[in-house]
Amino acid sequence: MSLEKYLSERGKAVDAALNRALPKATVKPATIHKAMRYSLFAGGKRMRPILAVAAAEACGGKIEAALPAACAVECVHTYSLIHDDLPCMDDDDMRRGRPTSHKVFGEGIAVLAGDALVTQAFEILAQAKETSRYKIRDLILELSHAAGSLKLIAGQVADLEGEGKKSTRRELRFIHECKTAAMIETSLRLGAMSANATPAKLEALTTFGRSLGLAFQVIDDILDITQTSEKLGKSAGKDIAAQKTTYPALIGLEAARKEAQSLTAAAHAALKPFGPKAHTLHEIADYLLAREY
Amino acid sequence: MSLEKYLSERGKAVDAALNRALPKATVKPATIHKAMRYSLFAGGKRMRPILAVAAAEACGGKIEAALPAACAVECVHTYSLIHDDLPCMDDDDMRRGRPTSHKVFGEGIAVLAGDALVTQAFEILAQAKETSRYKIRDLILELSHAAGSLKLIAGQVADLEGEGKKSTRRELRFIHECKTAAMIETSLRLGAMSANATPAKLEALTTFGRSLGLAFQVIDDILDITQTSEKLGKSAGKDIAAQKTTYPALIGLEAARKEAQSLTAAAHAALKPFGPKAHTLHEIADYLLAREY
Repeated sequence: MSLEKYLSERGKAVDAALNRALPKATVKPATIHKAMRYSLFAGGKRMRPILAVAAAEACGGKIEAALPAACAVECVHTYSLIHDDLPCMDDDDMRRGRPTSHKVFGEGIAVLAGDALVTQAFEILAQAKETSRYKIRDLILELSHAAGSLKLIAGQVADLEGEGKKSTRRELRFIHECKTAAMIETSLRLGAMSANATPAKLEALTTFGRSLGLAFQVIDDILDITQTSEKLGKSAGKDIAAQKTTYPALIGLEAARKEAQSLTAAAHAALKPFGPKAHTLHEIADYLLAREY
Repeated sequence: MSLEKYLSERGKAVDAALNRALPKATVKPATIHKAMRYSLFAGGKRMRPILAVAAAEACGGKIEAALPAACAVECVHTYSLIHDDLPCMDDDDMRRGRPTSHKVFGEGIAVLAGDALVTQAFEILAQAKETSRYKIRDLILELSHAAGSLKLIAGQVADLEGEGKKSTRRELRFIHECKTAAMIETSLRLGAMSANATPAKLEALTTFGRSLGLAFQVIDDILDITQTSEKLGKSAGKDIAAQKTTYPALIGLEAARKEAQSLTAAAHAALKPFGPKAHTLHEIADYLLAREY
């Protein structure tokens, strides 16, 4: 199967599962369910859930068993975008090519839609199938840790506090690890856990996810400088406007590009234990790096 | 043991468990952990966690086993207060006798502190002990449902949408059931589950919690009209200022008082199957109703 077809088919499987898992837009109070669905079905790339499914498949698991993990990480990701876009955070008007949640529903509902999505994530994940190695407890602890105050939220806090001041390379790495890499790592790990992965394979996917996540964020930083808002589907030049330190600002555009390439090489190397079974994961990593930057 | 002593001792056990469960205020990024702790240790009554522990004890369970449930419901309750107080929601400056989170830390951190607390709630609950009847999956589903878009968040949405318009008695009941009763019900249920309660006892505590929660909210509505801000530890008269429909506004102060009494009677009646083992739960119900209203 071509990568394009793989992404499209797995993306559709994830969309269908999300549609089944979420209350219909007519369920009372309709506003909140409309708002949850507005952001969740806004045409995101589904990178994290597809990574979860691909990790499961690389470990010999079934797509169906990986879908709760896939849906849960996408709900967490979407919630974090809704809250990050709020006026009191990054204050962004556009996301995934259309107006942000608070622009459409108002700030109060946007806060609550994010709250509802993170809560929904745990509800979905709790319905996953247990395996001999991994119990519901393990899955919930994995997600709550990655989404919590030491990782995803820590990254957003450090990001907020970094506005208007020059961060060191170490601080910037901390932000990227927390804000982006942690949830990508966890997407892969949860997918692998749904396939009852051996500890060695879980560890390899963790390293893969961390390198891939860091590469992805460095590329995002670069694109924020080099691309138009239209092409990004969100406001470009926001990092500079907010006086945030970015990799290109810190080490220059060319060095940032080299950093992204070296991180991607590390990602590929981490997949060695899987041999040909990691074919799709290799392709996804290439695809993510091959965005024009 | 006197009720006063019971509330104080169980409150201290809950505080100690929360203190152990949360990252220290010095853990990086310190801001978020300070903010989480600021709201969590603001001198709340600990009504929900104490109900969880009391329910467990009424079912013959141990305090220690009920503490994860108790801590989880308090984290969810505190998160909902932080978000409800935001300028884009109820816009409240005071809570539990001191400035609200966004007044101290700014809106961005207040949103994130709430996010971190709800995530922490699931992390804590996932560490509970399973019993023969109730698994981690059941506990997580119980909490995510009560805290989700069909209950706690639904109540806040309906509350927001009810501002400035006259609600019917049915709409008002929906708001109270979702916003207050659902989490009180779940506090009792999670406590009971930690004690491996029989389905019949779980059901009785559900009815108790629902009646108690509704009574509590009717009383809150009354106090908002009859008490000073100083006495409440939060801004009084907010419901009228926001043109929200309340029980006293809808049916009059005296009828609202009767409603509170009748709901409390229903709560007591629900405890019948427990006999003398529900002594403390009866006392707590009386205590909550006996606030000067």
